[in-house]
Amino acid sequence: MKIAIVGCGVVGSSWSLVFARAGHDVAIYDRTLPAAEAALAFVSQADPAFAARCRLATDLADVLNGAEYVQESAPERLPIKQALYREMDALLSPTTIVASSTSGFPASQFTEGLKNAARCLVAHPINPPHLIPLVELIPAPWTAPETVNVTRELMRTLGQSPITLTREINGFVVNRLQSALLGEAFRLVEDGICTPAEVDAAVADGLGLRWCFMGPFATIDLNAANGVGEYCANLGPMYYGLAKEQADPREWSPNLVSSIESKMRAAVPPADLPTRRKWRDAFLAAIVAAKRDITGKLGA
Amino acid sequence: MKIAIVGCGVVGSSWSLVFARAGHDVAIYDRTLPAAEAALAFVSQADPAFAARCRLATDLADVLNGAEYVQESAPERLPIKQALYREMDALLSPTTIVASSTSGFPASQFTEGLKNAARCLVAHPINPPHLIPLVELIPAPWTAPETVNVTRELMRTLGQSPITLTREINGFVVNRLQSALLGEAFRLVEDGICTPAEVDAAVADGLGLRWCFMGPFATIDLNAANGVGEYCANLGPMYYGLAKEQADPREWSPNLVSSIESKMRAAVPPADLPTRRKWRDAFLAAIVAAKRDITGKLGA
Repeated sequence: MKIAIVGCGVVGSSWSLVFARAGHDVAIYDRTLPAAEAALAFVSQADPAFAARCRLATDLADVLNGAEYVQESAPERLPIKQALYREMDALLSPTTIVASSTSGFPASQFTEGLKNAARCLVAHPINPPHLIPLVELIPAPWTAPETVNVTRELMRTLGQSPITLTREINGFVVNRLQSALLGEAFRLVEDGICTPAEVDAAVADGLGLRWCFMGPFATIDLNAANGVGEYCANLGPMYYGLAKEQADPREWSPNLVSSIESKMRAAVPPADLPTRRKWRDAFLAAIVAAKRDITGKLGA
Repeated sequence: MKIAIVGCGVVGSSWSLVFARAGHDVAIYDRTLPAAEAALAFVSQADPAFAARCRLATDLADVLNGAEYVQESAPERLPIKQALYREMDALLSPTTIVASSTSGFPASQFTEGLKNAARCLVAHPINPPHLIPLVELIPAPWTAPETVNVTRELMRTLGQSPITLTREINGFVVNRLQSALLGEAFRLVEDGICTPAEVDAAVADGLGLRWCFMGPFATIDLNAANGVGEYCANLGPMYYGLAKEQADPREWSPNLVSSIESKMRAAVPPADLPTRRKWRDAFLAAIVAAKRDITGKLGA
């Protein structure tokens, strides 16, 4: 397929690699040429053969010219998205699908009234999409079902793992799940139960070891002899009791954040953050590769 | 050290392996001899050399005789724990530490008034402890600091990853974190946003891939250029908005559970559950081994 990448930050660069790796022709565009060049260099670094399928577009009209699917990863500010979608609306062919990488804005906030609105939706990845397969698709009320279906199939052929929300909802699914976990993480630290490092250990050395290959439902389904129904019958009341204790939404206070920040910076000094991010990316790539190997041997 | 295993279900069997694997002498006891024999067979299956360090005890007095540390994994019913701790109290040496594997009962509920109460605490693993390192230590109000310190050091020498709660709290840390995630998972399904399988994908193909080697704080700390303080300044208001939406504790209704159960059983029929559990254990063992290898190469 002919793919257009519009917006080349970290997310757009990673998307460029995802599409080129899967054999698509990728046109790359950013308002600033160096950003587009950096995206191309990122693809080339992964494999020059992938970069051979990419071209740098000269302007928005050029990148959209002939494009069958557009992955938009412009800056996460609503006025920018709104202006960009109005500008694209005048240039799009009547069959092109436009998916936004936005994590925060439902498509209804920047596609209302556009003549191509039925072919616009959100396709929100977890950064970086070339390593993390999950993509959540969120249609606006006016997104055509066919738009969702085509995008979902495209994501599958890319090797991504698409989920489809039935409607727009604040935070979509991924950030809502993360919000729930973070809320309790901050609560435990604020209440002096344990340190941030200990919360992290509870996940990284505990819960996360199952969650990286089974979700929360699959996990509890196998934790009772007869499955999730039995699990809920046994433990539902306990979890309801905890849920009531956890139903006090709290702002993350400056003092609390500052205390956490100082502990994190003691562990990873400011100057070491870039190195630590490289460590994270390398670890993530290795874990994803290991999971793929294990899935090949044991099945999914 | 001389270790006593009291109670030999799945958890006690796995603990037997943890201690024997680390070179300790392990006495194994269960009210029913076949359960103790099964635990020994489980250790032997891992490595006969480990089993050579284990012995089957004939009764409670025998298993506690000379024990420096007791890991209790009796059935998860409070009257059973209370009776067992009273019985042990008459038999313990004045230096033995007794740690309970309980996931649900703080030690204050079954050690109050015991003469050895200062050396009792909870050491709650995530099942199975021979694969999952996390152990949460929860002292009762009367647990001696030295008891906590010795247990934490022991856990470290075993290769486990101990965290220490400052006080007793419902659900401890692990189940509180799981509760938060499950609450939102059930909410998303109940509200018709997506299916249980899609929630599972959001975690297993998304969030969980980072959480298996970085906890929630380490994750957000690296998701802003200058660390967690900047992340919270940028996204705190968004998360507070989500937290307010998530502050409606819900019972898991029979209809909801039944709908989830039927979807899970369509994916894994009842007869396939035992096989699926073997798959989980094999996958978990392989992921943990892969993570160990990656940590060896890239650091923790």
